[in-house]
Amino acid sequence: MANFKGADILSTKTLSKGEILRIMEVANDMLPFARKEKRSNLLEGKILASLFFEPSTRTRLSFETAMNRLGGKVITISGSEGTSMVKGETIEDTAKMVEQYADVIAIRHGQMGAPAIMADNADIPVLSGGDGAGEHPTQGLLDLFTILHEKGRFDAMKITIVGDLKHGRTVHSLSYLLSNYDVELNYVSPKALALPEKVTKFLDERGANYKEMESLEEGLEGADILYMTRVQKERFEDPEEGKRLQDTYVLNREMIERINPNVVVMHPLPRVNEISTDVDDLPTAAYFRQAGNGVAVRMALLALVLGKA
Amino acid sequence: MANFKGADILSTKTLSKGEILRIMEVANDMLPFARKEKRSNLLEGKILASLFFEPSTRTRLSFETAMNRLGGKVITISGSEGTSMVKGETIEDTAKMVEQYADVIAIRHGQMGAPAIMADNADIPVLSGGDGAGEHPTQGLLDLFTILHEKGRFDAMKITIVGDLKHGRTVHSLSYLLSNYDVELNYVSPKALALPEKVTKFLDERGANYKEMESLEEGLEGADILYMTRVQKERFEDPEEGKRLQDTYVLNREMIERINPNVVVMHPLPRVNEISTDVDDLPTAAYFRQAGNGVAVRMALLALVLGKA
Amino acid sequence: MANFKGADILSTKTLSKGEILRIMEVANDMLPFARKEKRSNLLEGKILASLFFEPSTRTRLSFETAMNRLGGKVITISGSEGTSMVKGETIEDTAKMVEQYADVIAIRHGQMGAPAIMADNADIPVLSGGDGAGEHPTQGLLDLFTILHEKGRFDAMKITIVGDLKHGRTVHSLSYLLSNYDVELNYVSPKALALPEKVTKFLDERGANYKEMESLEEGLEGADILYMTRVQKERFEDPEEGKRLQDTYVLNREMIERINPNVVVMHPLPRVNEISTDVDDLPTAAYFRQAGNGVAVRMALLALVLGKA
Repeated sequence: MANFKGADILSTKTLSKGEILRIMEVANDMLPFARKEKRSNLLEGKILASLFFEPSTRTRLSFETAMNRLGGKVITISGSEGTSMVKGETIEDTAKMVEQYADVIAIRHGQMGAPAIMADNADIPVLSGGDGAGEHPTQGLLDLFTILHEKGRFDAMKITIVGDLKHGRTVHSLSYLLSNYDVELNYVSPKALALPEKVTKFLDERGANYKEMESLEEGLEGADILYMTRVQKERFEDPEEGKRLQDTYVLNREMIERINPNVVVMHPLPRVNEISTDVDDLPTAAYFRQAGNGVAVRMALLALVLGKA
Repeated sequence: MANFKGADILSTKTLSKGEILRIMEVANDMLPFARKEKRSNLLEGKILASLFFEPSTRTRLSFETAMNRLGGKVITISGSEGTSMVKGETIEDTAKMVEQYADVIAIRHGQMGAPAIMADNADIPVLSGGDGAGEHPTQGLLDLFTILHEKGRFDAMKITIVGDLKHGRTVHSLSYLLSNYDVELNYVSPKALALPEKVTKFLDERGANYKEMESLEEGLEGADILYMTRVQKERFEDPEEGKRLQDTYVLNREMIERINPNVVVMHPLPRVNEISTDVDDLPTAAYFRQAGNGVAVRMALLALVLGKA
Repeated sequence: MANFKGADILSTKTLSKGEILRIMEVANDMLPFARKEKRSNLLEGKILASLFFEPSTRTRLSFETAMNRLGGKVITISGSEGTSMVKGETIEDTAKMVEQYADVIAIRHGQMGAPAIMADNADIPVLSGGDGAGEHPTQGLLDLFTILHEKGRFDAMKITIVGDLKHGRTVHSLSYLLSNYDVELNYVSPKALALPEKVTKFLDERGANYKEMESLEEGLEGADILYMTRVQKERFEDPEEGKRLQDTYVLNREMIERINPNVVVMHPLPRVNEISTDVDDLPTAAYFRQAGNGVAVRMALLALVLGKA
């Protein structure tokens, strides 16, 4: 992938430390543009095909903002409309058509592996915006970028990740990235929603230092970063059990102040009730800054794969 | 609000005469750009988040045209897709995320007050594109601008407003604006669809000169402006009564020529059957010009709140 | 139509040979921009209203790419959302509003004749993107452009068109165009899906040289161009008959190599199963190039009707 030109971003598993560092550096350079402090025409004349076959206004708007702020243009497929496009057409054929139109593709798809199929068939770079129960690599990268910005380093840190670790593709992509560094990982979830074997196996192969636990308070204690995600009660066979656990994993200001006042709180958003709004005003509540960092990281990825960084 | 930079436009109630005049002046300066006679890059580098959680292609396209013709860019959420964005996410959180992406927000939302909540939580200006049974301030302003352009003044005029005055948020926003001027207002509607108390109370407090009546012909007589809106027959308990009134409030060319040939006819559109198409060719049929004026007024508002007017 | 400025493109029936040639020439000039080799700002300051009241991401993205790559901007209505726009509003009124916003309209509509109504009522040029069982003129023109590029000529050729010739508006628009040239046309379809009388009558009036047949192999033999479309089995009363015919009209590599290795294969896309993927790698498989040509042809049409070619 060397200089990234023409590369696809489909997984965080295969990124080397050098590649990750390069993305972080370019994202840092992009911050003034993402923050509206400076203007750029770096990608003038380029078109992003923003193909969101599953609704995801959040990730879609972030990609489109990144492209627009670098002077590029966007063509969009969004949500249910996308279904009709693929109706009776293979992803392979869609890829071969869209490459005629755009310079780069961002794709969200309900089917795991769909972005990889698109990348195999399109002659232009493909950035995955999430695929079913697979990965969400650009989210993982913006999470990592946020950790770097909040704490100034990746190494020698304790990072606790909470919630639905089984289905959370964001958690998976971030975990693969963190396995490159000297960090202590704590995974907090009900047993039924623990990390899937594909992730623990990868962490084991990398010799990652991680623990699994069920107590949010235990995970909070001593953590540098607390990464919250949602526990969906509808995933439990016993609704009472689901309800109980959903309420167990609710972070509030009192808990933070009592157990670990310096912890940086992150969340991929949207939040439902797993972080009380009384946390929002803490200077260490980083989740909205995290959303802003997403624009810078996606600017970096667009510029890199288009050979313009 | 002084110079409008950073201001939100959520209601026409709170605009002073000086502020209204300023908007009218800037909108007038924008006419050559709205009419495609001149090009502008005034808002180059700026992004409008066009968030239409309720479908409203008309207002949405008008805002997006205004932004595009001033050299800005647009990111869009439209219609049912919007529902999924807010599913489980508060408007407060949506605001805090979108402010990371865009420079200004235009929002249409089914829930009354939603634009105000967004404005309270976003650090960027918010322009309401209509909220449930609340207001539609940019429509009110473009209506006022149209009156000014058609008649050359606001004062010393008789203005008749017809139709569903109870639910018509457009009518409410325009009425608040007109209460600043020396005009005679006639409101024509069936009793069941008369102006709600919140509007009559406001008009009374301002000492506005207005009358309520049921006859379209009576309202037409002597009016300088006839502002038509739709009577929806499904709003009546007795369908026969609804049908009768719907047919009562149909303006045609014969009526105009017989009663008041000089009256300027306006309508916020879309029209159903309340203005016969034989009115369209009259030089005083202003409703399509009114739609065009909407682009100039929204250009003015975008430029003003972005500090670029 | 002379120089095309201000013209509408609603049908291929009425285009003269001179006009067709002009479109082909300008499309040829546009190829470097469509192929991303050069950049252009030819249509800077212009806005395309991309009104797709029926979902058609393919044609829509092609039009929007063409506009964007020439430096123009786009406002979009897409799919089901479009329904709400026209709910209770006539196409006439929609036309009179959109002309206030945009410089040119591309419209797809389920109702045959809708683009013509829009063109009659809008003071800006209208390009049809397909109307019900009517025409699809820009597809016909890009098909013709592809034939010219693949074979270097229109004349002295045998062209075979296969599939649902009854409902295929693409087939109709292309047939009208081909009737201008000295070509031998073979139409292959089940009897139930043969060319409708409106097309055969037009071909007869023009004195076109055409044959109708039921065998794909017979049509393939000696053809310079094989234009495949889909046979929809659900159109048959007897499902068995539908299934049998659908499988009859499947082109694969073995057939091509056995019967006619030099034939150029075209398809308007999306493909379902009527061309085996083992055909894709043949240098004479032109269907993805055809999609790319669509951008150049739509660039040409946009530039011509806006008086910028």
